[in-house]
Amino acid sequence: MKDDKGLLIVLSGPAGVGKGTVCGALRMEDTNIEYSVSATTRKPRAGEKDGVNYFFKSKQEFEKMIENNKLLEWAQYLDNYYGTPIDYVTETIDKGKDIILEIEVQGAKKVKERYPEGIFIFLMPPSLAELRSRIVGRGTETEDVIDKRMMVAKDELEMMENYDYVVENDEVGKAVERIQAIVTAEHCKRERLIEKYKQLVEVE
Amino acid sequence: MKDDKGLLIVLSGPAGVGKGTVCGALRMEDTNIEYSVSATTRKPRAGEKDGVNYFFKSKQEFEKMIENNKLLEWAQYLDNYYGTPIDYVTETIDKGKDIILEIEVQGAKKVKERYPEGIFIFLMPPSLAELRSRIVGRGTETEDVIDKRMMVAKDELEMMENYDYVVENDEVGKAVERIQAIVTAEHCKRERLIEKYKQLVEVE
Repeated sequence: MKDDKGLLIVLSGPAGVGKGTVCGALRMEDTNIEYSVSATTRKPRAGEKDGVNYFFKSKQEFEKMIENNKLLEWAQYLDNYYGTPIDYVTETIDKGKDIILEIEVQGAKKVKERYPEGIFIFLMPPSLAELRSRIVGRGTETEDVIDKRMMVAKDELEMMENYDYVVENDEVGKAVERIQAIVTAEHCKRERLIEKYKQLVEVE
Repeated sequence: MKDDKGLLIVLSGPAGVGKGTVCGALRMEDTNIEYSVSATTRKPRAGEKDGVNYFFKSKQEFEKMIENNKLLEWAQYLDNYYGTPIDYVTETIDKGKDIILEIEVQGAKKVKERYPEGIFIFLMPPSLAELRSRIVGRGTETEDVIDKRMMVAKDELEMMENYDYVVENDEVGKAVERIQAIVTAEHCKRERLIEKYKQLVEVE
């Protein structure tokens, strides 16, 4: 027996921890989880499809979505808007399907304010040292940028206070398993099921 | 990274729901979970081993355990005592290993009073109708006994209020998977991990 409403699962964590990789690996599994698609005003890159990678919007369209409260969260980076359209999320949940949102820490905080009943998962590096090597591993950052990232990561670690779960990303496969386990366990939570089961007893 | 203390997992549920079968199937999995061994004053049956199936105790020994508060819970059935020795449970948890306790509903209630930080899982039949057919399936009960069992089951269903999780036993394999998922998820709970992670940041 499953409860009727789907879960909103928010996967977040510090920059460089591998949110995208873990989320990508999760998508390869047969999970029955939907994936939220972000809206953005940035131009599509080669191969990106509207409604798949992003919902590509004009600046005016995006600002109208902000105005009409149609975004679960949004932010501005490098003169472009990015945000999570709320309709797709609520429609999915209402259909009884789970939906996962992969999002940076500030965005997750905003989602938490708006949708506190979501399941908030913080993806953690095995250690800050390893976080450092992962960032260095990208090979595109200077020492200064890395040091700044480390400072940011420390702040972000403190932000894990707001999360329900902490999943260590020691191995992508293991992180994926843990996330799947969390989703399964959340569906077994007594609070979610008790009303339905009570009906079962009444009907007999 | 794992938190240092193991979890006490209490698996309970109405009579006839298949606690023993599910627990037996869970034992076949590579779970790293220990299993609690009950103490009893009843005589060993053919093939039963002391310390494996039960700790076989004399009436005097058992009453001394009660007196010395050495039982997490105990009860008397058909002139015999049954109970859960507390030392094995706490030693296992302190070693950082999880331990599972398969126990009837009244016993689980007593464990909850004594160890509220345990993870309480209620094993549910897909419906009371199926619970009935399972009991009938045993072929050893009269209609009267069955009707009485049904009444008891209804009471027990109300008892699921005290549990953290409800696992439906529609298929043994699925029930086992759900229990394993719950254990994994519980180890990812933010409250369990945050102190350890905070140390990580301090050390850097």
